[in-house]
Amino acid sequence: MRIDIITCFPEMFSSFFSYSIVRRAINSKKININIHNLRDYTLDKHKKIDDYAYGGSPGLVMMIEPIDRCIAAIKVDNDCQEVIYMAPDGEILTQSLSNELSLKDNIIILCGHYKGVDERVRTNLVTREVSIGDYVLSGGEIPACVLIDSIVRLIPGVLSNEVSALDDSFQDGFVAPPVYTRPREYKGMQVPDVLLSGDKKKIDKWLFEQSVERTKKRRPSLI
Amino acid sequence: MRIDIITCFPEMFSSFFSYSIVRRAINSKKININIHNLRDYTLDKHKKIDDYAYGGSPGLVMMIEPIDRCIAAIKVDNDCQEVIYMAPDGEILTQSLSNELSLKDNIIILCGHYKGVDERVRTNLVTREVSIGDYVLSGGEIPACVLIDSIVRLIPGVLSNEVSALDDSFQDGFVAPPVYTRPREYKGMQVPDVLLSGDKKKIDKWLFEQSVERTKKRRPSLI
Repeated sequence: MRIDIITCFPEMFSSFFSYSIVRRAINSKKININIHNLRDYTLDKHKKIDDYAYGGSPGLVMMIEPIDRCIAAIKVDNDCQEVIYMAPDGEILTQSLSNELSLKDNIIILCGHYKGVDERVRTNLVTREVSIGDYVLSGGEIPACVLIDSIVRLIPGVLSNEVSALDDSFQDGFVAPPVYTRPREYKGMQVPDVLLSGDKKKIDKWLFEQSVERTKKRRPSLI
Repeated sequence: MRIDIITCFPEMFSSFFSYSIVRRAINSKKININIHNLRDYTLDKHKKIDDYAYGGSPGLVMMIEPIDRCIAAIKVDNDCQEVIYMAPDGEILTQSLSNELSLKDNIIILCGHYKGVDERVRTNLVTREVSIGDYVLSGGEIPACVLIDSIVRLIPGVLSNEVSALDDSFQDGFVAPPVYTRPREYKGMQVPDVLLSGDKKKIDKWLFEQSVERTKKRRPSLI
């Protein structure tokens, strides 16, 4: 999968791509990430990418022209199956959307900043708008990391243990059951006996029941 | 505000804290961030922080002991108003939760990784569990960045234009109206006439109507 990121803060991605699962996916050639600095697509000497909003609202708005030029440059050798704008009021990211996007061959992710992008970018240049949740952030860079992390880990071969991704929360429609590890007792807190029983059938039944119970309590809308 | 982060991947935060709004908040002493490497709180020579799950489920689970020791060390000089675990099945982050947390004097954020933390951490050591959305990520580090960004920008004096934060999406219960900037026309795409009219009253009315209309269409649950 090829991912092209358009941003005015390319430096914000460096430690994410150097240490996370994305690093592993890049090294094993499962993905190819290109970061485009929006300022490289300006024509004026000040490399201006934003300006005041028409109508007098406070805050700066990202201009359409550098974004249009950047998308056009990426499309020269790429069919760009999706051009995704990370927008606070976009379609809310869900596991099923991540699953769907993980099957694409190439996507562009546009990160807004300041007051966001000129509305004409949203109506004419992007194919999809995605939000990671109903809260305000300073820009689309961190949301882009969220989206990329959620997609990349679904690409076969990226996680070392493929079984591990399949029984994560949400993947089967339930949240994950509780997990316990060593020691058996810590300051009087015990591991449930069933997990120590060695009885695989009993353990699986307990884990499933816990998963259902936890989903009912924490995410009733999933049931 | 003091924020203590507990993680086994401290490097993942470096570019986020060096380039974002968080940098500005640190420089202006509005916040004080301490990153704690969980491995520094282990007692064995291999600095082991995780182990296999009891019951045979695949994946590694973060052990309670290093986390307990780390939280105890932080609490020596800090009353820790909240110990927040970034959990996929936690309380979903909303703007009102960000507003609430931005009023705290100090919080601890615990980032899980692998299959998450031993359940006894969740039931005994944390005060709150927060999820940024219903999708699976590789760890709590990126979600912690999301939470911190959403909180820090609400602290008075962090954003250069305080008005700017108040009219973001969700802050008044509506998503933001469309924004436009130069040029007036781009490849035949026009800025709406009303924004160029100079009539403040008319412009405000239009922006409010657009905001309501967009909220009805994109976030009907907010109305």
